Amino acid sequence: MSEELVGNCLVAQSGGPTAVINASVAGVVAEALNNPCIEEVYGGINGVLGILKEELIDLAEESQQIIRGLRYTPASALGTCRFKLKRDLDYDRVLQVFEAHNIRYFFYCGGNDSQDTADKISKLAQSKGYELRVIGVPKTIDNDLVTTDHCPGYGSVVKYLCTVIRETALDHEAMGQHDLVSIVEVMGRNAGWIAAGATLAKGKDNPDDAPHLIYLPELPFSKEKFVDDVQAVLKKNKYCMVVVGEGLLDKDGNYVANSATSKDAFGHQQLGGVGDFLAGVLEQNLAVKARSSKLGTGQRAATHCSSQTDNDEAFMAGKAAVRAAVEGETDKMVILVRAEGENYVCETSLAPLSEIANGVKEIPEDWISEDGTSMTAKFIKYCQPLIQGEVQVPYENGVPAYVRLSKRRIRKVLDSHEFE
Amino acid sequence: MSEELVGNCLVAQSGGPTAVINASVAGVVAEALNNPCIEEVYGGINGVLGILKEELIDLAEESQQIIRGLRYTPASALGTCRFKLKRDLDYDRVLQVFEAHNIRYFFYCGGNDSQDTADKISKLAQSKGYELRVIGVPKTIDNDLVTTDHCPGYGSVVKYLCTVIRETALDHEAMGQHDLVSIVEVMGRNAGWIAAGATLAKGKDNPDDAPHLIYLPELPFSKEKFVDDVQAVLKKNKYCMVVVGEGLLDKDGNYVANSATSKDAFGHQQLGGVGDFLAGVLEQNLAVKARSSKLGTGQRAATHCSSQTDNDEAFMAGKAAVRAAVEGETDKMVILVRAEGENYVCETSLAPLSEIANGVKEIPEDWISEDGTSMTAKFIKYCQPLIQGEVQVPYENGVPAYVRLSKRRIRKVLDSHEFE
Repeated sequence: MSEELVGNCLVAQSGGPTAVINASVAGVVAEALNNPCIEEVYGGINGVLGILKEELIDLAEESQQIIRGLRYTPASALGTCRFKLKRDLDYDRVLQVFEAHNIRYFFYCGGNDSQDTADKISKLAQSKGYELRVIGVPKTIDNDLVTTDHCPGYGSVVKYLCTVIRETALDHEAMGQHDLVSIVEVMGRNAGWIAAGATLAKGKDNPDDAPHLIYLPELPFSKEKFVDDVQAVLKKNKYCMVVVGEGLLDKDGNYVANSATSKDAFGHQQLGGVGDFLAGVLEQNLAVKARSSKLGTGQRAATHCSSQTDNDEAFMAGKAAVRAAVEGETDKMVILVRAEGENYVCETSLAPLSEIANGVKEIPEDWISEDGTSMTAKFIKYCQPLIQGEVQVPYENGVPAYVRLSKRRIRKVLDSHEFE
Repeated sequence: MSEELVGNCLVAQSGGPTAVINASVAGVVAEALNNPCIEEVYGGINGVLGILKEELIDLAEESQQIIRGLRYTPASALGTCRFKLKRDLDYDRVLQVFEAHNIRYFFYCGGNDSQDTADKISKLAQSKGYELRVIGVPKTIDNDLVTTDHCPGYGSVVKYLCTVIRETALDHEAMGQHDLVSIVEVMGRNAGWIAAGATLAKGKDNPDDAPHLIYLPELPFSKEKFVDDVQAVLKKNKYCMVVVGEGLLDKDGNYVANSATSKDAFGHQQLGGVGDFLAGVLEQNLAVKARSSKLGTGQRAATHCSSQTDNDEAFMAGKAAVRAAVEGETDKMVILVRAEGENYVCETSLAPLSEIANGVKEIPEDWISEDGTSMTAKFIKYCQPLIQGEVQVPYENGVPAYVRLSKRRIRKVLDSHEFE
């Protein structure tokens, strides 16, 4: 154990929210309060954006009830951002804010872009001789961070998606007079982990259960094969349920449906509409009724149908981040490690931030069946443990009683910062 | 009490499924087994379509577990149809099937078209001197049946919708750097009851909570007013959440978004796409990012997030139908009656089928605010009790463990019937 570092800690959230990213913050707060070397527990509003603006809140002042409720509240209670630090003077500003508030521990919950930011802040602090411990907390429904077995947020989106698919399939089955193709468009920009997870909606003893066809961005999409695939399902089944990841690519690597041309601050294309596109392909080529649905933002916020395993691991990752920092680690991200053996056991470890930043974990080739539209037993063995257990959210007046932080602001001591 | 009528009963389901229509069938089965005058308890496969085909199953042979599971299984376990009986010989055929299997009690779970069918079957039996007791069981997420205070199925779709809206709103709130308009398209062909119910997603003390704007088919839609409404919300709020019923009409009574021209068997236009249409209007007229989501079929099948009150009432309606028939009633539908007084108490009564058939209950004018985009306290008082209580569905391996009937067929005794 290294020398004790006494000072304040700051936790912030970045990127798209999940059903469990607040559970990670709850884990950070719970563990920070256990460590006397951490004096104040601050939250940053809207990720690095709020840090640039010196918008910090006092998390230790939140009530016990609110911190408990936080664990079962979707979205990012501190606010989040997709802002990318580009200029040296922005990085310098972050450090000024840290110095001004004696921040010595920085916990950043986010995906690969966010861990990249955390890595750069950490390295800048080192180069300037400012003692700072930076630990990333993994977060992404996309499950595409490298080095970690899986990401907090993924199990919950899969659980909700499988629930909706199983329910929708029963409805289609009941209607089942005509050839119906039902397409569910799900999130997943670069990797098909979410779409792949939909396979868990199938019953163990019912190979003909929905979803019948899964299309992943990992495999180049062919219209002709798609039409053939659907026809083959409709020969056996009255309806066909298709799950498609939003980032589906053609053989040249272009997005199949490019309905929007806008890009986010990281230069990622904003997607949507591949479900409608596939429905159109079918209606042009087959005498079927094709419907598409798009769960939208709701799918990553569905705490009401989230995985207790995922929630527990998100909380555990938050606590592990604090413990690692207090023990002297820095410039690392907490990773989830699956213990050897038949039974699923998940532990935490650490990996260098630089390894995570901007890497993308793809689905192993042998986890996808040869038909290209279903998953192998290896994938199922990997994914099934992640969706186990049902989070019980509190309800009030018939709707989930989620909490909002009271957000008492820390007084600003610096001049304001000009940024783009 | 009239003379005892001894014979078999038949229950069938018709129209779009709901999260609780199987609870009504469970109620029919539970009560039928209590009455010795009902000898066999049959189910009809796919509504009248299965009756025409003489496709009947033995519900008394299903296991206790399955009947219990039925109560918490979405969609129509017996199968459903949108088939409309048009020809006299089809009606005659229904009666032949009833005679052949000594069906003396017929319970039909469905909306107004289905109750119209039940009414015609009942009247034909009377005219032919075949003793038959016909009782309708109300079912529709649309909540548009007349004479009943509300319809089983409605409370559950509202509860799920409010949950998704509250979760999505927290996500938008967290992202909230830019002007974002999020449009949720919900079901509701002729009446805006479902869209209206979304108002319950608002917190009691947070008038600025989502949804900010609700558009109902009851009020003619104006693009100009819509753009102004959204602008006004975005002056106060970082984001604007809009809920829109699929059947939105313009001032001339035409569907605002008429993406599909297909009609169902009852001549109803198949709708979809009004959310995307509204997003397009905004992107053309305002510098905002507009996203739409369409929950699709899943919204009426979301038993995992359904109302216990709704489920209890659906079960109660099924039981009440059997009791009424055994007591000699016929040609009626079970209706739900709200008892006088401050506390919500729901009882059952009966109304003539002919009154329900093809009527549409609209939202009273003074339940819609003058702004045309929100609901008054009267609506909230009406709707809030219907979404109370959380159904706990059983889970297995991380996904809801819904049941399928084993469907042992009753041997056919008639020749097959030719139909369109």
